[in-house]
Amino acid sequence: MKSSTKSSSILALSGGIGGAKLALGLTHVMRSEKLMIVGNIGDDFEHYGLQISPDLDTLMYTLSGKADSEKGWGLADESWVFMQALEKLGGDTWFQLGDTDLATHLERTRRLREGESLSAITVDFCRRFGIESSIIPVSNDPVPTIVKTPEGDLAFQDYFVREGCKPTVTGFRFQGADEAEPNPELLETLRNPLLQAVVICPSNPFLSIDPILAFPAVREALRNCHAPVIAVSPIIDGDAVKGPTAKIFDQLGYPVCATAVANHYRDFIDGFILDIQDSALVSQINKMGISVELANTLMTDLNVKTELARSVLDFSERCAKRNLSL
Amino acid sequence: MKSSTKSSSILALSGGIGGAKLALGLTHVMRSEKLMIVGNIGDDFEHYGLQISPDLDTLMYTLSGKADSEKGWGLADESWVFMQALEKLGGDTWFQLGDTDLATHLERTRRLREGESLSAITVDFCRRFGIESSIIPVSNDPVPTIVKTPEGDLAFQDYFVREGCKPTVTGFRFQGADEAEPNPELLETLRNPLLQAVVICPSNPFLSIDPILAFPAVREALRNCHAPVIAVSPIIDGDAVKGPTAKIFDQLGYPVCATAVANHYRDFIDGFILDIQDSALVSQINKMGISVELANTLMTDLNVKTELARSVLDFSERCAKRNLSL
Repeated sequence: MKSSTKSSSILALSGGIGGAKLALGLTHVMRSEKLMIVGNIGDDFEHYGLQISPDLDTLMYTLSGKADSEKGWGLADESWVFMQALEKLGGDTWFQLGDTDLATHLERTRRLREGESLSAITVDFCRRFGIESSIIPVSNDPVPTIVKTPEGDLAFQDYFVREGCKPTVTGFRFQGADEAEPNPELLETLRNPLLQAVVICPSNPFLSIDPILAFPAVREALRNCHAPVIAVSPIIDGDAVKGPTAKIFDQLGYPVCATAVANHYRDFIDGFILDIQDSALVSQINKMGISVELANTLMTDLNVKTELARSVLDFSERCAKRNLSL
Repeated sequence: MKSSTKSSSILALSGGIGGAKLALGLTHVMRSEKLMIVGNIGDDFEHYGLQISPDLDTLMYTLSGKADSEKGWGLADESWVFMQALEKLGGDTWFQLGDTDLATHLERTRRLREGESLSAITVDFCRRFGIESSIIPVSNDPVPTIVKTPEGDLAFQDYFVREGCKPTVTGFRFQGADEAEPNPELLETLRNPLLQAVVICPSNPFLSIDPILAFPAVREALRNCHAPVIAVSPIIDGDAVKGPTAKIFDQLGYPVCATAVANHYRDFIDGFILDIQDSALVSQINKMGISVELANTLMTDLNVKTELARSVLDFSERCAKRNLSL
C-alpha cells in the first residue's frame, strides 16, 4: 500500500453526509490526491454478520459520485430486491441494505476476516471506485459510539436507525478509545511539515467528530499541529441542516448555536467558518481567540460545496500566515 | 414447532434438482402435507460468512414454484445487482449469489448464529414459502462432503462449482457422519407404522444420497424399515440427465448404468424404477432380489413429474403388498 502521508496537504475530519459534501467540494478546488479524509468509525457495527462502516461508505459513495444525495445515505439508483426477500422471510429489516451496498459490506467483512485492516480495504475500495483522495478510518480497531440514555446505554445504530433518534441522550462514550490505536497515517499527517490545513467538516460534533477526537493521541496531535485547524459550523441560524444534531445539542444542555460548536472545539481550532446568516455571532467567537470567516455553508448543490471548499482553503491560508506572524 | 412425523406417509430422500423434480411431482399425486423430504446437507458450505444449503434451497424453491428450472439451481426471475457490484469490488464471484437468494442465506445464517437449528429454520422458511410438505435436513450437525482426488481432498463446492467438476474423483467422505446426530424426525418417521413408502429420488447416488446414507443410524433404519423402499434411477440409457453423475460413475470404476445404481442401494431397497429405455436391465436387477418397474423418468415437464410420482406410489403399494404376502 502506497503511503499518501507525504503528499497530503489538506486533512479533513468527517462524519457522513455533511462532511462528505464538503470533502466533495474540496476535490473540486485542489488536487484530489492531496486530500486525506479521516472517517468516523463510531457508527460502525455488525449486522447480519456484516461489518458495516456507514460513514466510510458515505464518503466513498459521495466522492465517487454514486451517493443518493436525496436520502443522504446509500447509493443512487439502488435496488432493493434482497431487502424485499428478507422481509418475506421474516428477517430484520430495520437497517436498509441495498443490493449494491450489500456487496460493499460482504466484501469488506470477508477481507477483514482474512486479516486485512479496515484501512487497507478502504484504500483498495477507493481505488476501485476511482477516488483519488485518501479516505482513512480513524483507527483499525473498533471504537463504537455508545449512546447514554436515562433507560441505559444504546448501541449507536440502535439509537440512530432502529429507534429513529427518539430516546433522550444524556451523553456518549466511545468504547475502547483510550486503548485503541489511532491510524498511524493520521498522526504522521498531522506532524507532516507539508500539511497545509486541517478541516473539521460540518458534521455533528458529538456523533461524528467526537468519536475521532476521542483518541487522546489525535486530540493531542491536533493541539500541537503546526497547520491551521479550521472548523465549519454544522449549525445554521440555530438549527442543523439534517439529522438529530439540534435535538442532541438541546438534550445535552447546549444552546443550538454555532457558538457552542466553536466552544466545543476551542482548545485546538484556529479558525471557524460561520454561516452568513450567523454574522451576529462573530464577536462572541472571536473572543475565544478564534478567527472567524463567513460563508454560505448550506451545501444545496455542487456550486455551493465548491465555493465553501474554496473559502475553507483561502481562510486556512490566511490563518496560517497569521500564525506565522505571531 | 409442530411435529409432522405422525402424519407423514411418504418419505423421500433427495439431493437438489432431480430429486426436487420428483418431490414436486409427488405433491401433485398425494396430500402435500403427508410428504416429508430429507435433504442432503453434504453440499452445505460457508461462503462470505454465509451458511449456504444448496439442496435445501433447491427443494424449497422448487416446491414453492420459484425455482429456475432452466438453470437447475437458484430462483427464476432472479436479479444479480449484488453480484455485479461484488465483481467491481474485486470479490469472489465463483459462487453465484442472486439478490433474492442472498436473503435466504443471510437470514438462515443469522438464525443459526442465534442458536436455532437448521431444521427449525427450514420448517419456518417452508411455511413462509407456502410449502405444505416437510423438508428436513438429514442432520442439524454439519457433515460436509469431501471429494477425494489424486491431488488431495477438495471441499465439495470447490470441486463442484469452483473447479466445475474437472478434477478426477477417487472417492468421497462425509466428514463427521459417524459422530453427527441424524435428524430425530427422520428416524421416527422411518419407524412409524403409518409410513407407506420411502422414495430414493433420482439424485446422484454418490453426491446426493450417500451423504444421507452416511449416517449409520439412517442406513440401519432403512434396512429395518417396514415400508417399502423404492429407488428411482438417475441414469437413463447409460447417461445422467444433468451434472457430473455419469463422469463420476466412470471415474470411480462403475459402469454408467442403472444396474450399478440398483446395486449401490441393494442392501435396503425393495423396488427400483428403471427408465423405459432401460427395459433390457430388468432381469439383472431382479436377480438382486429387487422388484423393478419401468417408467418415463426423464422429467421434462410437470406432467412427466406427476406421472412418475404416480408410478412411484403405485409401485410402492404393490411392493408393500408383496412384502406382506411373504
